[in-house]
Amino acid sequence: MAVIIDGKKIADKILDEIKSKVSKLENKKPSLAVILANDNPSSALYVNSKEKKSKSIGFNSFVYRFDKEVEQGTIKNLIIKLNNDPNINGILLQLPLFNHLDERELIELINPKKDVDGFHPINVGKLNCGLKPYAKCCTPKGIIRLLKEYSIELTGKNALVIGRSNIVGKPVAAMLLNENATVSVAHSKTKNLKEHTLRADIIISATGCAHLIKADMVKKGSVIIDVGIVKKDDGTLLGDVDFENVKNVAGFITPVPGGVGPMTIASLLENTYELYLEQLEN
Amino acid sequence: MAVIIDGKKIADKILDEIKSKVSKLENKKPSLAVILANDNPSSALYVNSKEKKSKSIGFNSFVYRFDKEVEQGTIKNLIIKLNNDPNINGILLQLPLFNHLDERELIELINPKKDVDGFHPINVGKLNCGLKPYAKCCTPKGIIRLLKEYSIELTGKNALVIGRSNIVGKPVAAMLLNENATVSVAHSKTKNLKEHTLRADIIISATGCAHLIKADMVKKGSVIIDVGIVKKDDGTLLGDVDFENVKNVAGFITPVPGGVGPMTIASLLENTYELYLEQLEN
Repeated sequence: MAVIIDGKKIADKILDEIKSKVSKLENKKPSLAVILANDNPSSALYVNSKEKKSKSIGFNSFVYRFDKEVEQGTIKNLIIKLNNDPNINGILLQLPLFNHLDERELIELINPKKDVDGFHPINVGKLNCGLKPYAKCCTPKGIIRLLKEYSIELTGKNALVIGRSNIVGKPVAAMLLNENATVSVAHSKTKNLKEHTLRADIIISATGCAHLIKADMVKKGSVIIDVGIVKKDDGTLLGDVDFENVKNVAGFITPVPGGVGPMTIASLLENTYELYLEQLEN
Repeated sequence: MAVIIDGKKIADKILDEIKSKVSKLENKKPSLAVILANDNPSSALYVNSKEKKSKSIGFNSFVYRFDKEVEQGTIKNLIIKLNNDPNINGILLQLPLFNHLDERELIELINPKKDVDGFHPINVGKLNCGLKPYAKCCTPKGIIRLLKEYSIELTGKNALVIGRSNIVGKPVAAMLLNENATVSVAHSKTKNLKEHTLRADIIISATGCAHLIKADMVKKGSVIIDVGIVKKDDGTLLGDVDFENVKNVAGFITPVPGGVGPMTIASLLENTYELYLEQLEN
């Protein structure tokens, strides 16, 4: 049976390390500003969780909540204010936004040096050029960290990323390529997904299609990273991967919940701390 | 036998169209500035060829040549001057540079709106986010154009890019993904390259390893795009692909020379013209 990758444990380790460093700071604490401009209950939950974790490790956390009447200009003005505020180290625009808002304009308005999500084109570009972005996208960063924590070799391995979002699929593909994996990206237009999955040494699935990946689709001993999360009507959480059956074939596998999820928040707070240190120096 | 993709013909068509449009311009002509700061004879040849083509279609062309004593600051000052010069539409920094120069600093100093090569991180980022960059990297743009001119379907096809440079491999992979191909990127650390090539519907090879791709490595009917170019001691030009043998297996193939090469210059001048139009509007 596969080794179950314990994202919760690694995330707690990262957060404990940051908490310990923050407790020793004599000057001001790292500060994260979160903008919530939608009425999606999941987003509200994520934002509450980020706020709670931020405070638990000694960060300042500021959440700006808007109702559906909010205008683009109001959020633009807030971002400009936060960009210029020396007491704010990281700015997170919780996605998705209300439909009437222009997400791209707002993402590109965030100062790349405070872009804690790594979504600004200049940070995306640096990542893709093999350079150091100010911050790396949180979920992909968390995935690479998990693979490294379990000493999973990446050089020369066939890695398959399923899903090509700007938030997970494309940046994790770029990071795997930077780590010398041979990287393939499959998506909704891919034909014969199973042919691709069966060849992969490492599969990162980020589609949101519950139980897309079945046991007969994966190679024995492969590494399976499940980024999907779907909530059923009865409250059960399902990933992209049919965990109970795939774990009998895979070599390593992340559970849902408790795999990638906790790493996303840990990476976010790690990014905030790193931006804080960089801004202190300048 | 494969259809031979005639890059020279398509490139000439693109250049003729631009020339015709430029001849009708009443106001100032599109202007390209090229910076040459190395003593590599191939670079000098490329730059001369770009200059000649630019002028032949009615552009203004300015070439700034430096010897090996040039300092970083001198080129920085030139780039700043060109960025601010309303008579210059595109700035091209011919790579590689003399070893003592900092290529990254200079690339990032170019105004992204005049970055005719599409190498600035913000243009790379936009391309990777599925947005419109100010300009798209020339060789990858030329490759996509060739595929489209020959009505080669990309959606759902397995495309293999060999080589992961910032100039060809990575941007062409991003463009193929934007065109809905299932994209894999192989490179020097890839194991069993033949397993990857045999599965590909489309191969873009950009390694500079002469005749890396042999006839027994490609699937019958596949599309083979050869970006490699190596000059033998006797002056013969060799591509990445063993053209004479692979053409009997492939469905479409580019020759070397006369395939991708002419498209790179055509895309460069097309980019200059597009930047010119954008700058006219603003």
